[in-house]
Amino acid sequence: MTVHSKYIYPFGGSAPKPTVDPSKQIVGGKGLGLQVMSKIGVDVPPGFTLTTTLCPIYAKENDLPAEVWKGVRDNVRRIEVDMEKEFGSMSMPGMMDTVLNIGLNDVTVDGLAKATGNERFAWDSYRRLLDMYGEVVLGIPHEDFEKRFDKVKEAAGAANDVDLGVEELKTLCNEYKQVYVEQGKEFPMDPYKQLYACVKAVFGSWMTPRAVKYREINNIKNLIGTATNIQTMVFGNMGDDSGTGVAFSRNPSTGENVMYGEYLINAQGEDVVAGIRTPQPISQMKEVLPAAYAKFLENVEKLEVYFKDMQDVEFTVEKGKLWMLQCRNGKRTGVAAIKIAIDLVNEGKCTQSEALLKVEPRHVEQLLHPTFSADALKSDAYTKGIVAKGLPGSPGAAVGKLVFTPKQAEEEKANGASVILVRETTSPEDVGGMWAAAGILTARGGMTSHAAVVARGWGKPCVCGCSDIVVSEENQTVLVKDTNEVFKAGDVISINGATGEVIRNVIPVETPGLKGGLETLLGWADQEEGVMKVLANADSGPDATQAAENGAMGIGLCRTEHMFFNPERLPIVRRWIFHTECLDDLDHIKHFQRSDFKDLFVAMNGKHVTIRLLDPPLHEFLPRPEQVHEKVAEELGFGKDVPRMLARIESMHEENPMLGLRGCRLGIVKPEFTQMQVEAIMSAAADFMEECPDTAKVHPRIMIPLIGSIKEYKNQALLIKQEAERIKAERKLDIPYEIGTMIEVPRAALVSDKIASLVDDEDGKPLCSFFSYGTNDLTQMTMGISRDDSNGFIPKYLEMGIFEDDPFQTIDEEGVGYMVNHSANLGKRINPNISLSVCGEHGGDPKSIEFFDSLGLNYVSCSPYRVPVARLAAGQIRV
Amino acid sequence: MTVHSKYIYPFGGSAPKPTVDPSKQIVGGKGLGLQVMSKIGVDVPPGFTLTTTLCPIYAKENDLPAEVWKGVRDNVRRIEVDMEKEFGSMSMPGMMDTVLNIGLNDVTVDGLAKATGNERFAWDSYRRLLDMYGEVVLGIPHEDFEKRFDKVKEAAGAANDVDLGVEELKTLCNEYKQVYVEQGKEFPMDPYKQLYACVKAVFGSWMTPRAVKYREINNIKNLIGTATNIQTMVFGNMGDDSGTGVAFSRNPSTGENVMYGEYLINAQGEDVVAGIRTPQPISQMKEVLPAAYAKFLENVEKLEVYFKDMQDVEFTVEKGKLWMLQCRNGKRTGVAAIKIAIDLVNEGKCTQSEALLKVEPRHVEQLLHPTFSADALKSDAYTKGIVAKGLPGSPGAAVGKLVFTPKQAEEEKANGASVILVRETTSPEDVGGMWAAAGILTARGGMTSHAAVVARGWGKPCVCGCSDIVVSEENQTVLVKDTNEVFKAGDVISINGATGEVIRNVIPVETPGLKGGLETLLGWADQEEGVMKVLANADSGPDATQAAENGAMGIGLCRTEHMFFNPERLPIVRRWIFHTECLDDLDHIKHFQRSDFKDLFVAMNGKHVTIRLLDPPLHEFLPRPEQVHEKVAEELGFGKDVPRMLARIESMHEENPMLGLRGCRLGIVKPEFTQMQVEAIMSAAADFMEECPDTAKVHPRIMIPLIGSIKEYKNQALLIKQEAERIKAERKLDIPYEIGTMIEVPRAALVSDKIASLVDDEDGKPLCSFFSYGTNDLTQMTMGISRDDSNGFIPKYLEMGIFEDDPFQTIDEEGVGYMVNHSANLGKRINPNISLSVCGEHGGDPKSIEFFDSLGLNYVSCSPYRVPVARLAAGQIRV
Ligand SMILES: [Mg+2]
Ligand SMILES: [Mg+2]
Repeated sequence: MTVHSKYIYPFGGSAPKPTVDPSKQIVGGKGLGLQVMSKIGVDVPPGFTLTTTLCPIYAKENDLPAEVWKGVRDNVRRIEVDMEKEFGSMSMPGMMDTVLNIGLNDVTVDGLAKATGNERFAWDSYRRLLDMYGEVVLGIPHEDFEKRFDKVKEAAGAANDVDLGVEELKTLCNEYKQVYVEQGKEFPMDPYKQLYACVKAVFGSWMTPRAVKYREINNIKNLIGTATNIQTMVFGNMGDDSGTGVAFSRNPSTGENVMYGEYLINAQGEDVVAGIRTPQPISQMKEVLPAAYAKFLENVEKLEVYFKDMQDVEFTVEKGKLWMLQCRNGKRTGVAAIKIAIDLVNEGKCTQSEALLKVEPRHVEQLLHPTFSADALKSDAYTKGIVAKGLPGSPGAAVGKLVFTPKQAEEEKANGASVILVRETTSPEDVGGMWAAAGILTARGGMTSHAAVVARGWGKPCVCGCSDIVVSEENQTVLVKDTNEVFKAGDVISINGATGEVIRNVIPVETPGLKGGLETLLGWADQEEGVMKVLANADSGPDATQAAENGAMGIGLCRTEHMFFNPERLPIVRRWIFHTECLDDLDHIKHFQRSDFKDLFVAMNGKHVTIRLLDPPLHEFLPRPEQVHEKVAEELGFGKDVPRMLARIESMHEENPMLGLRGCRLGIVKPEFTQMQVEAIMSAAADFMEECPDTAKVHPRIMIPLIGSIKEYKNQALLIKQEAERIKAERKLDIPYEIGTMIEVPRAALVSDKIASLVDDEDGKPLCSFFSYGTNDLTQMTMGISRDDSNGFIPKYLEMGIFEDDPFQTIDEEGVGYMVNHSANLGKRINPNISLSVCGEHGGDPKSIEFFDSLGLNYVSCSPYRVPVARLAAGQIRV
Repeated sequence: MTVHSKYIYPFGGSAPKPTVDPSKQIVGGKGLGLQVMSKIGVDVPPGFTLTTTLCPIYAKENDLPAEVWKGVRDNVRRIEVDMEKEFGSMSMPGMMDTVLNIGLNDVTVDGLAKATGNERFAWDSYRRLLDMYGEVVLGIPHEDFEKRFDKVKEAAGAANDVDLGVEELKTLCNEYKQVYVEQGKEFPMDPYKQLYACVKAVFGSWMTPRAVKYREINNIKNLIGTATNIQTMVFGNMGDDSGTGVAFSRNPSTGENVMYGEYLINAQGEDVVAGIRTPQPISQMKEVLPAAYAKFLENVEKLEVYFKDMQDVEFTVEKGKLWMLQCRNGKRTGVAAIKIAIDLVNEGKCTQSEALLKVEPRHVEQLLHPTFSADALKSDAYTKGIVAKGLPGSPGAAVGKLVFTPKQAEEEKANGASVILVRETTSPEDVGGMWAAAGILTARGGMTSHAAVVARGWGKPCVCGCSDIVVSEENQTVLVKDTNEVFKAGDVISINGATGEVIRNVIPVETPGLKGGLETLLGWADQEEGVMKVLANADSGPDATQAAENGAMGIGLCRTEHMFFNPERLPIVRRWIFHTECLDDLDHIKHFQRSDFKDLFVAMNGKHVTIRLLDPPLHEFLPRPEQVHEKVAEELGFGKDVPRMLARIESMHEENPMLGLRGCRLGIVKPEFTQMQVEAIMSAAADFMEECPDTAKVHPRIMIPLIGSIKEYKNQALLIKQEAERIKAERKLDIPYEIGTMIEVPRAALVSDKIASLVDDEDGKPLCSFFSYGTNDLTQMTMGISRDDSNGFIPKYLEMGIFEDDPFQTIDEEGVGYMVNHSANLGKRINPNISLSVCGEHGGDPKSIEFFDSLGLNYVSCSPYRVPVARLAAGQIRV
């Protein structure tokens, strides 16, 4: 009677225990949990899983194969035997849609009442089925049922759902049937008909717009479909020896190793999740249902050991007996993820490498995300600005304009605004707007409500269950009950997801950075064998110090021109640009560059310091025409001749500055600037070595930008070498410098073998020791997209699915990635020891890092802030 | 005694006749001519050629191998036997430097005097040797000798060189020796020492800056070195039965089949070329030296038959005996090149294919270059503006500012000015400035003077030998002798190279276009087997008509937006851009596009008409902010709200418009515009078919610009197909349209196989039938160079040799060419029938055309004006 086929996996009761866990791809996450629980001796209500592979069949045929329908019937009969009761009510919990109590009808409802001795429960179950079946299978709006419910409650003078008696529930069932009539729909009385319709509804739900949107936002790809679980109902609403709950094996906000969850006596699971009744903390269950609670703790420990991870479980107690409904690795905050990973290693539950995989890049990002600073929390603006307090749904600080609908949130976000989405409660339909919001505030729902769970997954601040407020979507207002203060759409508020506080003011935020266990964990990542190194893009001493603190193994890109925008320096730079023949200004620039470079060498003592020569077009440094007046003209060497100065600025205008006179082109046209910079770099290194002769180590790497042809490279490399050797000789110091280039012009990728082959005619040595892929510019040129102007179509492209990712965030493997790979192969063919790296934004993007690792690059370089994320990603790839 | 080795090729006298002509690469052009003349029985003064392969040896060793020096001595002895005279004087004419009369000294000068019975001649030869040896071998400035010469002439009261007697020439020799003393240099009396020093000087001259510059300007590459010819002197200055001359076997200006040249009695060759004495027309030689002239005509005919081309020859008559000194294929004007090529075929001297190779692309260009219009020539400005008349050195019209030095010419050109370079006479040192000038004017020198020969080679207008004027480089003035009118540097004049006239006014010019034999010749080019087709880039009916007249096989690129700038249309286009929701304007645009497209179909009746969908960023069509005022704002739908309109314009600004919202991105974001254009194209085709049901043929090809990814292509192609099929169905006409794309974004080249594989899911047919390489944009993006902004460094790059060619003129084979080749291979691998072509500027560049032909592309498309050049180039490749 245990029917197993490639489409059907039975579990619980007399189901065979799998020797090999089935693939999550085939049975889904929930199915896998049920299989495993069944295997390791945790009681689950018997049932069976219909595999994901049925989804494409259903999509094509609009039906399932006859053998599957037969298997369904056979399994239902197997369950009837296991549970010693007839098919009366089954549940079908799904990723997207859930239907409970399938099988009830006007006849079996009485049977259920008699079998359980609880008439109220039977009728309550029936009215729930009518509601869910109507909504999920027939598409009747839930609100239509809700209205009837309120009407009956009102008539009965009932405050809560549980206050309704049997007669009122019977009335309600009739009212619900009336909804079907109004809608011209039919509720089938045949239990199998109900079941078949529900199965079809679930498989049909895979391609609904809501499901597609959800997968899009969560970047869920390459799934075969949804699996469908059909399971015996167990009832938490069978009296005070029954109940239901959800829990995490550890605190998902802090990671603390204590059971964390909620339960409700005499309730079904949806009551907890939907946040309609406010549940009790799980620890209190010990008092009320001690045996079930003990079994529960035992089960959860078994699961944590098996899965080597913190578990998120759902359970029901039916007349004292504990049934586990679901288990999965729990979602958690960044702080929690790191604490849990490290604790699991310390507890011997997993290895360091396994622990690495439990932390997601976004968890690390969360630690680097804004929170309110300690000072801000003490400020009057904060303490006196608190208008309401809810539950701390998801930690972090958010400040933004109030919006009331997901659509508004998406629109305002598109306009660049930071918004707080406020809702009575959220539902899966809202995910688009939740994603767009900086923070989420709900009036109802607990710590495991939809809003809180989703927000934690994204690392987005959330205050939930804030019963101090009344939200009116219609009026677009938030009313604070106590004070009658009203906030309107567009008003700016702050929320504190760590405390649940809602503040009327704009509160300053700060970024926590690395703390606690993160450094330990990243240390483990760094130790993975063959791991790609992570360097930082840093332009100044403080940047470099920050980078070192975040664990950067060196500086992969210093954009020297970033030092030019200092207000004291800018006039000098401008004067030089206007009068390049005047060597005084050049000398002045050299002096401040030298001092800056020394700071970098000191901060990185001995690690790579890769300095890119001047890159941007010179006109980027010039004042805008409206800033030019007599004083400025005089300061910049034009006497008081404003028109002449304006004419000079105008003459330097470029149509497409990105592709103009910049990068190595500047150094070729103005070799004195290249010489000056090399002198500054080498002198700075020498200064540090002389100052700290015993401890100082330096490793300057001079990087030539925007190379497109070998002759450009040779021109600049020889000039650099000549100047560097001169300084070495003058200072009588052996400074171990390297020369290399950014590969960011597509043409450079095509001739990389030739660049790698270049040698100095005089000493026969290679002229290029490293390539660093400037994937920002390489993306711009390979794809023909100006990043500055991409907003005109990239959002639309993403929406239409023409682009899967924003190519400036995640490397375009097919195009830009091809160029990187092509170049890397050409370079390595000539010089197997050439250093290969990436220094564009993509160097901090986990997905891109995985791609670069697959090409065998030596390191990535990213902003100091992204270094921890990149270290984690680089380590995880190698596990 | 006839010494031949791999480094030495003897000729003339008892030299062995070669069975196979030696390579021009090895013996040089002059050496080859001497070998051939020797072989076919044309008398040349005996001598020998030292091969170009000695150049790299000399450059390395600073000397020649001992065996070569021995071979030189052996050959000199062989010549002594042949000529029955001792080594007295040899000539060494070279590409760059020539030394005559080697071997003369204080003793042999008397021997020469006795042997020839002409003391004056002997001393004249000696003073010439002293001058040339000093200049070429020792680097003494020619002016130093010139000053002494003028002094002696003045002392003798002599007007011309020939007026000097023996005693004065003896004095002159002493004066010249004095120059050596002043310079601390020595003139060796040993003839062999003289010879060896001259040989070394010639081989040393290969790497002088002048030589390098010459090769650079003339794009002469891959030469091994210079060959050196050593030859018995024959003397045209041995009295009235002697003489020397240069001639072309046909008129090099018009191509007319009559001997064309000049000679001087009692003179040496340099007298003719230098233009110091004004020579006589060659036809008059018949009277003076009839036997020599008859032999000369016979020789020239032999050479023309042998080389199958018009000959440029030099000869000397020594005491009645004719010696041919040099022969080569003659330089000629475009008109002449075409006439000669066709005449040679008609005369049976060469085949059509051979004739094709006698015409260079620049010859065709010349026909398309400006001349003064017939009306202009009759105008008062012209006829009353003539200030002087010289010789018609090289035809064509030029208008420009007067400059007096090659340096000024180069500087002014760099500033974008058109200049006329005026010189007393030009020399090889001047080539840089001559190249930069729009036209050349000299006061001295005949039709075969340096200025005239060089200018004709370049197709540049030249008036030479204009003895009406006095040129002062020092004062920077041109004085017109008769009128005392003075022109200063910067004054604008016009010159007519076809008539020799110099005009004080700015005279309007026109372009002749195809005429006479050019169409015949291009017809031959079109018939070469497997020749690549030439289509035209044409945007309007008149363009298309011009293209068809120039032989275009279709339209390879119609830039539809060029039709938008019409003043009546622009406001409509602008209104649509500002208010895309307003479909009236779109409809209006559709109507005028439809009418334009019909003109194209009519002009091309049945040939390809490839129409690119809207490509430029929309803001290119908007008014500049300073053009916006109330009336404009009202006209464009902003009421009188100027600020609002300015804000809209500002909001559309892009940092790098080349890489912004344009091309297919527009069509994706605004599909209604794509639809509108497709409707206009298909309707226009239908209109023409309905109007002329018996004769009309149409072949519209709809080309999608700026594709970077397959999803972009699929999006637009499906939209186009849907719209096109709709119109076909509505009009009940079978319009055979194609859909394809420009490949101009590097990424598109990388995914060309995927684009070629795309099929319509509905009918399974390929969605892309052609690729057209937009090599302008592909160059911009692959090289990272904005064409608009390239002036900031490309000139410098060319000067420094970082670029060999301007990549926007000649395709960068290594980079951009790689992308084209890569894409073409990917495309053909999927679809062997895919049509591949080029529609960038490079489609009209002969060197690039050769490259595209080597990739197997189907056609190039270029501006109507370049079509003839492209047809010729395409045909020549296949000969
Ligand atoms: Mg860059
Ligand atoms: Mg283009």
